[in-house]
Amino acid sequence: MSGCGYRSSTVTLNDRFFSRIRETLVREGIPYQWEALNDRLPADTAPSYCMRNFRVAAGKEKGTFGGFVFQDSDLYKWLEGVAFSLRWHPDKDLEATADEAIAEAVSAQQPDGYLDTYYIINGLDRRFTNLKDNHELYVAGHMIEAAVAYFEVTGKRVLLDAAIRYVDCIDACIGPEEGKIHGYPGHPVIEMALMRLYDLTKEPKYLNMAAYFVNQRGQAPLFFEEETARNGNDFYWKNSPFRYQYYQAGMPVRSQKTADGHAVRAMYLYSGMADVARETGDESLARACRDLWENTTRRRMYITGAVGSTEHGEAFTFDYDLPNDTIYGETCASIGLMFFARRMLRLEAKGEYADVMERALYNGVLSGMQLDGKKFFYVNPLEVVPEACRLDPHKQHVKPERQKWFGCACCPPNLIRLLNSLEDYVAGEKDGTVFVHLYAGSRIELENMSLQLETEYPWQGKVQIRVEAEQPQRKTIALRIPGWCSAYTVNLCGEPGQGEFRDGYLYLTRIWGDGDLIELNFEMPVSLMRANPRIRKDAGLVTLMRGPIVYCLEEADNGRDLHLIHGIRPETACVRWEPETLCGVTTVTTEAEREPVTEFTELYEAQQPEESLPVQLKWIPYYAWANRGLGEMRVWVRK
Amino acid sequence: MSGCGYRSSTVTLNDRFFSRIRETLVREGIPYQWEALNDRLPADTAPSYCMRNFRVAAGKEKGTFGGFVFQDSDLYKWLEGVAFSLRWHPDKDLEATADEAIAEAVSAQQPDGYLDTYYIINGLDRRFTNLKDNHELYVAGHMIEAAVAYFEVTGKRVLLDAAIRYVDCIDACIGPEEGKIHGYPGHPVIEMALMRLYDLTKEPKYLNMAAYFVNQRGQAPLFFEEETARNGNDFYWKNSPFRYQYYQAGMPVRSQKTADGHAVRAMYLYSGMADVARETGDESLARACRDLWENTTRRRMYITGAVGSTEHGEAFTFDYDLPNDTIYGETCASIGLMFFARRMLRLEAKGEYADVMERALYNGVLSGMQLDGKKFFYVNPLEVVPEACRLDPHKQHVKPERQKWFGCACCPPNLIRLLNSLEDYVAGEKDGTVFVHLYAGSRIELENMSLQLETEYPWQGKVQIRVEAEQPQRKTIALRIPGWCSAYTVNLCGEPGQGEFRDGYLYLTRIWGDGDLIELNFEMPVSLMRANPRIRKDAGLVTLMRGPIVYCLEEADNGRDLHLIHGIRPETACVRWEPETLCGVTTVTTEAEREPVTEFTELYEAQQPEESLPVQLKWIPYYAWANRGLGEMRVWVRK
Repeated sequence: MSGCGYRSSTVTLNDRFFSRIRETLVREGIPYQWEALNDRLPADTAPSYCMRNFRVAAGKEKGTFGGFVFQDSDLYKWLEGVAFSLRWHPDKDLEATADEAIAEAVSAQQPDGYLDTYYIINGLDRRFTNLKDNHELYVAGHMIEAAVAYFEVTGKRVLLDAAIRYVDCIDACIGPEEGKIHGYPGHPVIEMALMRLYDLTKEPKYLNMAAYFVNQRGQAPLFFEEETARNGNDFYWKNSPFRYQYYQAGMPVRSQKTADGHAVRAMYLYSGMADVARETGDESLARACRDLWENTTRRRMYITGAVGSTEHGEAFTFDYDLPNDTIYGETCASIGLMFFARRMLRLEAKGEYADVMERALYNGVLSGMQLDGKKFFYVNPLEVVPEACRLDPHKQHVKPERQKWFGCACCPPNLIRLLNSLEDYVAGEKDGTVFVHLYAGSRIELENMSLQLETEYPWQGKVQIRVEAEQPQRKTIALRIPGWCSAYTVNLCGEPGQGEFRDGYLYLTRIWGDGDLIELNFEMPVSLMRANPRIRKDAGLVTLMRGPIVYCLEEADNGRDLHLIHGIRPETACVRWEPETLCGVTTVTTEAEREPVTEFTELYEAQQPEESLPVQLKWIPYYAWANRGLGEMRVWVRK
Repeated sequence: MSGCGYRSSTVTLNDRFFSRIRETLVREGIPYQWEALNDRLPADTAPSYCMRNFRVAAGKEKGTFGGFVFQDSDLYKWLEGVAFSLRWHPDKDLEATADEAIAEAVSAQQPDGYLDTYYIINGLDRRFTNLKDNHELYVAGHMIEAAVAYFEVTGKRVLLDAAIRYVDCIDACIGPEEGKIHGYPGHPVIEMALMRLYDLTKEPKYLNMAAYFVNQRGQAPLFFEEETARNGNDFYWKNSPFRYQYYQAGMPVRSQKTADGHAVRAMYLYSGMADVARETGDESLARACRDLWENTTRRRMYITGAVGSTEHGEAFTFDYDLPNDTIYGETCASIGLMFFARRMLRLEAKGEYADVMERALYNGVLSGMQLDGKKFFYVNPLEVVPEACRLDPHKQHVKPERQKWFGCACCPPNLIRLLNSLEDYVAGEKDGTVFVHLYAGSRIELENMSLQLETEYPWQGKVQIRVEAEQPQRKTIALRIPGWCSAYTVNLCGEPGQGEFRDGYLYLTRIWGDGDLIELNFEMPVSLMRANPRIRKDAGLVTLMRGPIVYCLEEADNGRDLHLIHGIRPETACVRWEPETLCGVTTVTTEAEREPVTEFTELYEAQQPEESLPVQLKWIPYYAWANRGLGEMRVWVRK
């Protein structure tokens, strides 16, 4: 039960593209979110109640519980993000603030370890009675993740010890043994959290708990059905096509062949499944992960790495159903897809996992945050007409501009913890092979050796990796050849490099000496992309990608009525680095045509259309849209 | 206050196209719906409770009220349809059944004339306390319409007298006078119903009531707001973009410039407004009607004459927002559009009104009924993928097959009354001019003269009109030149006819003698149609029309994945009359291309698509879709 031996490498990130974003997060996002958690944002912003709930639960302040039942998790996610930020950007003041926040949270912990302010405030007699809807185990999961991260970075145990006490409390109440509740969370996350605690402590109890939550899920008789009956509640999803699959609980996980239900819950569950499969070597569970991966990424994923096709249940729908304008595509779901991808990579080194991880990161994840780090998207549409968001009731979940905060503020702190932990996504080692998954400027520390990676990725395809080694050492360096790349060169110390290409990685094995230089050059042309013909909503449409970056058209550059643009001519593509635009982006111009808006007297006419007019289009990276005021946007355009 | 002098002509319909449909209705639809009203359909069909409610209200049977608050209206709409059917298809048994039904209904009437089984059963003390939502005036409106029709056809006064008593009761409770409720209906229909009663009786009270309901609507302070406050109810639409416009009550009718809110309510209100404007000569009200007509038909109408873009509120959304797959397009709304059009024609003779009336009739109205007259659509989509109706929560209102009955069964009886009263839509007279609006085989009776109209419309553009007159007579015959027609000939007794074309009508003035023959020939090519470029969802798409008929592609003829079809070549169109297909239709074949479904390994690829393959398409009239089992359908196809 030692897993497959894969571990993330120790990486220091020093990347031009991500540094700007991460510095913004540290400078703006983390303090801003702390203000939010303390209800110190302007009055027109949805209040959080998060820190107040802890004080009320600790008896320090009078009041009722505020916000969603899972409100505590906002603090834990913020703390986890802070922990990761302190790793690359030490900040004594911030650490002191975090220590105080931890003290505040822990002061509400009950003698038996229980810690969930919703039930502490509203009545502990009801705790663990509604695992389906009331998110206690979800909150616990985020507490564990924050605790592990904060301990790993700062060495401080306060939150870790509290989390372990809470895990003990959960273990005493829920589990396979007689007299315990044979339940599992309605919103997964504790599975992968327990696996992080297991990674840290090697205490088998945590692995067993995670495995129990994975394996018990969806077993007959259905726990959630019994729980609902016990509580006398109405079953909210009874008329939905999802029913218990909304909770990822309509069937045992090994029977699930399609990514169904709430997309974030799905991604979090699959991530936990992959963790358990890796550590236990359970091949049937690994197969379930592969099935769900394949269904997700080859049938139900947007080109941006967004997942979740419908607002109803924030959920997946069915194969190839990927509407661009009524999409859900929650930022958290794309982050969850990165969690899942990273864990699949730990299970087996296949480039497709890193390809999807990269796709989500540079597109559907980054799009969730305004360039100034202060506003956020919950929903990440691929086509927006502001008027429709306002006036079409079924598009009211789609916002044409990022929002300051949300009543349900899961996405902003999720971005903070993801982007501050990118170090953990860059590289990994297994059986003496070091894998480079993502190309970002970084230093990868190995035993007796390190790799210094320099690149202007994602804007340029050139990557230099310099070996630093006290003495020559035999090793395999496996470099991911991105799925988007159809031509590349690799030089080893100035000579064409020989390697073995397998499953998306180029394996270079030799005795490496200090100063050895690997030069990769991925050709990065502008590619005209088309969707699988089964995707109905993309029929007859195209878009552009360059490297990992998905492009879009915005009204700010191309005027209104983007649906009238057609006849994209990719051969006219002109690429330009614009340091002053959108915090520095590579833009693309192409020629195309545009139908004129003739004022029909009738809505429908038989007569021939007027000639389309030539037009010059300007494309910007999708992640940077909606940073220049209200306007239309489209990723997919008529070909 | 004598109106504009327009009256419908006395018409006998003898039309091949409509005879089949109307005979089906009489043979199948009317008896079937009578069974439905009496809960004698198979157990898997939604029960109606309609007749039972009347018996319970009359104290003949014990029980509670069943069905919707407006359930009584189903009987009245059926009775109105029966009345119209008896006009062209006398049936003693059916008339006896209707007489019994009327006796049953009237036996529940209260001493003061009140008759609404919902309140009679649930407590009369609450009557007229929720005009906004509880449909009393809507039910009363349908009672009046049935009563007038039944009296006009059979000469029997039982229902008419009861309706007049109920109107007196309403007049005693609601109106401008002090002490009365200053309200109006949440669901219009009583306005046009009162105008029919006025047409019949010339009693000014009914006109005044109709005018009051029109003019009071939306005035500040808003009656519905006060009523909601009095009742302590929550306002259901408070977070909707519609709010009180859902009820057509967000502002006074003369301030409404756009067709908003619930589409059927809109059409019914506008119809009543047009009636009142005509009879009162109120030019500001006529202008409001024209504004709303123009917005509806030039900004918010589907090519099929469907209206209502969203299921949320069964409502209009905004200009040019006409999604084909999430459409509401209720059958009743297209019927309501015909009501509105007919009344605008009575206000002023403009061909565009009749064009829309024809468009709705042959497409969005007829599509509401299965060819066998036994199943019905509530929603009339222009694009259907059965899998999406099942699995996409936002398409669950769209049914890929017609249904046997509905809990809210407004559409089936509405079809019965509309299709059985087509006589009233064909022609009209004003100031000595006879207008022919619709081309259907018919005999039009005028003073001392009649016109015998023969045609194979809508399949052929040839129309013969033979004059029968005891003695020669000077008269103007105004023949509508359909908006779809770009070339036609008119012969008078074998010679090219001279006439004046104005506002969509060709005016032929002469002294007509017995046997005079007008021969019209409308060229009826297959036309490739495009939508106004502002309609986003139709961008890059085309469809076919021939004459008034909108065509579509069905899976039954063209296989699955209709979204992959493109490159329609209208010049290859081949028209064929197929008497055995779909009860007799003219089909069209065209050449086109079809993208192959290559099995991508990825969802998104940069590579060039495979060559499209030539394909022969078969198009059928839209109204006849979904009569050959479950399958895809599309009206708009990639050009």
